[in-house]
Amino acid sequence: MFHKYQIRIGGVEYPYYLSYSSEILVGKLKDLGVDSVFVVYDNSINKEYIINLKNLFTGEIKCETVGIIVGEQNKTIDRVREISEHLLECGIDRKSCIVAIGGGVLGNIVGLVAGLLFRGIRLVHVPTTVMAATDSVLSLKQAVNTKFGKNLLGMFYKPEMIFTDYTCFDSLSKRDYNAGLVELIKNLVSIIPEYIDEVYGILNDRVEYTFEEFNLFLELSVKAKCGILINDMYEKKDGLVFEYGHTVGHAVEFLSRGEIRHGEGVAFGLMVESEISRELGYLKDEEVDVHYRLLNKIGIIKQLTRACAYSAEEIWDVMKHDNKRGYFEGKEGTVPMVLLESLGKCRVENGSYVKPIQEDIFKIGLEKTLSKIEEFM
Amino acid sequence: MFHKYQIRIGGVEYPYYLSYSSEILVGKLKDLGVDSVFVVYDNSINKEYIINLKNLFTGEIKCETVGIIVGEQNKTIDRVREISEHLLECGIDRKSCIVAIGGGVLGNIVGLVAGLLFRGIRLVHVPTTVMAATDSVLSLKQAVNTKFGKNLLGMFYKPEMIFTDYTCFDSLSKRDYNAGLVELIKNLVSIIPEYIDEVYGILNDRVEYTFEEFNLFLELSVKAKCGILINDMYEKKDGLVFEYGHTVGHAVEFLSRGEIRHGEGVAFGLMVESEISRELGYLKDEEVDVHYRLLNKIGIIKQLTRACAYSAEEIWDVMKHDNKRGYFEGKEGTVPMVLLESLGKCRVENGSYVKPIQEDIFKIGLEKTLSKIEEFM
Repeated sequence: MFHKYQIRIGGVEYPYYLSYSSEILVGKLKDLGVDSVFVVYDNSINKEYIINLKNLFTGEIKCETVGIIVGEQNKTIDRVREISEHLLECGIDRKSCIVAIGGGVLGNIVGLVAGLLFRGIRLVHVPTTVMAATDSVLSLKQAVNTKFGKNLLGMFYKPEMIFTDYTCFDSLSKRDYNAGLVELIKNLVSIIPEYIDEVYGILNDRVEYTFEEFNLFLELSVKAKCGILINDMYEKKDGLVFEYGHTVGHAVEFLSRGEIRHGEGVAFGLMVESEISRELGYLKDEEVDVHYRLLNKIGIIKQLTRACAYSAEEIWDVMKHDNKRGYFEGKEGTVPMVLLESLGKCRVENGSYVKPIQEDIFKIGLEKTLSKIEEFM
Repeated sequence: MFHKYQIRIGGVEYPYYLSYSSEILVGKLKDLGVDSVFVVYDNSINKEYIINLKNLFTGEIKCETVGIIVGEQNKTIDRVREISEHLLECGIDRKSCIVAIGGGVLGNIVGLVAGLLFRGIRLVHVPTTVMAATDSVLSLKQAVNTKFGKNLLGMFYKPEMIFTDYTCFDSLSKRDYNAGLVELIKNLVSIIPEYIDEVYGILNDRVEYTFEEFNLFLELSVKAKCGILINDMYEKKDGLVFEYGHTVGHAVEFLSRGEIRHGEGVAFGLMVESEISRELGYLKDEEVDVHYRLLNKIGIIKQLTRACAYSAEEIWDVMKHDNKRGYFEGKEGTVPMVLLESLGKCRVENGSYVKPIQEDIFKIGLEKTLSKIEEFM
């Protein structure tokens, strides 16, 4: 089995291969006319996989492998420089290709290395987490953090292709796998609700999916992301819908100092922001309930005890410094949020995809969420 | 007097204003809808100029100024990080605009800062050297050096506009001014020979030019650069003509460790590479002589004693590591060069804008140049 999607973002296109084997990856790299490949991989992934991959490169293509330690704390421009210099030392040149094997953070760091080296060198992403496969590689955004905030230094950069090797996902923990599926759930409720029933029937809390089911998740992620990004590659208008659930989600993620996974934070944020949407008279009761049912089906609601422990004041304080600041004129005492008008439809007022929310409305949404979560425990 | 050119590079456009005053710059920034401006300037330029500029910003637009020390040795990604963090500390946000005031090196460093901050923030170039005004700002290339070579980390990034304040050039030394004019001479012989006579009549070794004359230089630079870049913004095909004179030029510049200005190196390179073009039967005697006559008119040939001191072997050794390596299959024992077929016409063989040159041909070209230079001394 072998699937190919054509990703279209703005005027940019690249293929996304969902495949089984490293042999096919090496074949595709040969098709690109590459004569030297520099594999940069997350040190925590299976070494066997990397050794086997390297052995597939025969004499005509030179292959160097570089393992790096990856984490939010390493996502800096200094790291980008170190990796770039290491690759230059290994003999990388303008015609080489970089293959980035890992999750979203690795993809971002290495994507920026590829974007900057020789003012842009060929890049292939091999995502090894569900989050990366269904979310981060379906965007051109590459960035690293500074001490003043997340993703403040970066660029938009296009890969040559995305290549997913199904075996890479075998070693993911259930927790990571499920956290990765939250972005898919977000896309279902906010962009493609017509697929909710089909996906609901498949989701389970045991992380047991067939190749076809995983393929459906990927296909829907591509459909949802690219349908929007083809007209808004810089994610400044329609693309803001991707931020649904993220204002509250980022805040609890930040408060936990990394204890809460991004997907878990967003799961929590989806529930709170759906409640706020209802409170303002946009979403109906049953539309809000769909959020809870989908998230409960993967068992993630039970894992949110930590997120539930933060007070409304703590969360509010963090949200006031959200990274959407600067995009919008913030009205005093409000936090801008992306809300839903109905399932699959973003609330737009006077051309704005973001609505200023007052603290009391947020508190009501949070309280409703907390009491409902209790029922699921 | 006030001139405006529309720069077109690939699918990208931006205006180039040649003006007299900071007042007009501030007006144009207001027109961009900017509410905060961060001026990053070369510490060696007149402080009065910066203070006067800052005072022109009234309450509605916030203005911060940051002086930086600029030189080839500061052209690093660490510098880019430092400046970015300093600007973040000063409160820069997504809607701010960076104004880069200085020469080509400053423009490159600050251009990269602007390209990376928030994945791209508005940028205005105010070139203060002839080289920057007629060459570097007419390209989207931004890059910094690594210990493995020049301009290895960078990107293509578009400014909002270029703004030239004529008074900035008053403080340039004659040597710098003339070195800056060499790129114009290169463009005349390699791209727009129909203007050679007109410019020849104006050039002098006293750096005495009227506003109209300087304006003509700029207009011709725009015409030559943009005519090529509109179809080749990444400078991989026709755009390689800009490298004429640069293979030998970069080598003597490198050997002098910064003692020889870039423009002086290119002046030397133009003569040697024109001799090589003739040696191979492309250029006629009189076409080669035009190179010498134009360069002598600005008195730069007399300044090339240092470049004349390097042996053919020294120069050859450096050229073997030229930065065009990697673009082209280097034949053993040759150095790739861009040569002319005739004035205004690049030599193209089998679709290649670059020709592998053997050491003995290079030596003949160098010797001819050295003996002719002696006649001018």
